Amino acid sequence: MKASEYAKQKELAIEYFNKANIILTDEEKNNIEVADFGLGVVNNVGLQLVVYVNTERVCAKEMVLLPGQSCPEHWHVDSYGAQGKEETFRCRYGKVYLYVDGEGEKDNIGAKIPMTDVTVFHEIVLEPGQQYTLMPYTKHWFQAGDEGAVISEFSTMSTDETDVFTDKRISRIPVIED
Amino acid sequence: MKASEYAKQKELAIEYFNKANIILTDEEKNNIEVADFGLGVVNNVGLQLVVYVNTERVCAKEMVLLPGQSCPEHWHVDSYGAQGKEETFRCRYGKVYLYVDGEGEKDNIGAKIPMTDVTVFHEIVLEPGQQYTLMPYTKHWFQAGDEGAVISEFSTMSTDETDVFTDKRISRIPVIED
Repeated sequence: MKASEYAKQKELAIEYFNKANIILTDEEKNNIEVADFGLGVVNNVGLQLVVYVNTERVCAKEMVLLPGQSCPEHWHVDSYGAQGKEETFRCRYGKVYLYVDGEGEKDNIGAKIPMTDVTVFHEIVLEPGQQYTLMPYTKHWFQAGDEGAVISEFSTMSTDETDVFTDKRISRIPVIED
Repeated sequence: MKASEYAKQKELAIEYFNKANIILTDEEKNNIEVADFGLGVVNNVGLQLVVYVNTERVCAKEMVLLPGQSCPEHWHVDSYGAQGKEETFRCRYGKVYLYVDGEGEKDNIGAKIPMTDVTVFHEIVLEPGQQYTLMPYTKHWFQAGDEGAVISEFSTMSTDETDVFTDKRISRIPVIED
């Protein structure tokens, strides 16, 4: 992603945080992360986020999805000796369409990766004040509705760099070019 | 606490959640917890809270302190086989005065309880968008400023019932009378 594009996405994210009345420090605004997943179509497949805290035990984030923008299919595996990430998404603004592997946690825990190539996703719609908790190893992806979305995430330690994506072209950690 | 007083505190809490633009479901509003700590002076020593999620690994809460209201001095001990609670307070509205044991985590971890009877507290002031992370076993208490406060808490599993309070008259779990 070009630095200018990165900066533009940060500005857009701040607009959505304002719509959701999420108050950020200047330092947090400056440190907004823009994930383009290495696919070069950030407004379609991308995510903007602020990490409030991330220790060995707890993580909290605030995320923005622009209208129609998706976070692609992935799951959380055991990392650095800790069990895979457990996360709760709480919608603060707009609408989120969350797609969760219908096989669920139970079947996936044994294998520590999804059991089947063919995944039957359940659709969960989250409006402001609604939330959903995902247990480890559960395949999921999510997309904002036409108004975009602001989502709070409460979780165990976040290790974005170990997330496994179904689309093997994806690289989670953004690369910024001049 | 009388049921009528409990209901009144819930209504007040909803006013503050509205001021902070925190959107709650009707069920969450209905389930707001009012902690009076058994002291019978809830507007001086008390706390109103909503628990979003509380699993074996992660907890997130939204808390209201009315103007000048305090959550009294306490600390989090190992509970149910898990290490003491680690928590981050993030101010969303108003102002919070947080008092944290100056001896800090390092000295306290060995003993699993505060080392000294005489505690030197550090004052930390949190305004909207500011936060502070407390490690386990650290004595702390906090109080809202004149406008009250709304605080998000991100933590490991919450076990309010095992919190240790300096004032031994305190009973954390509220009792509602007819």
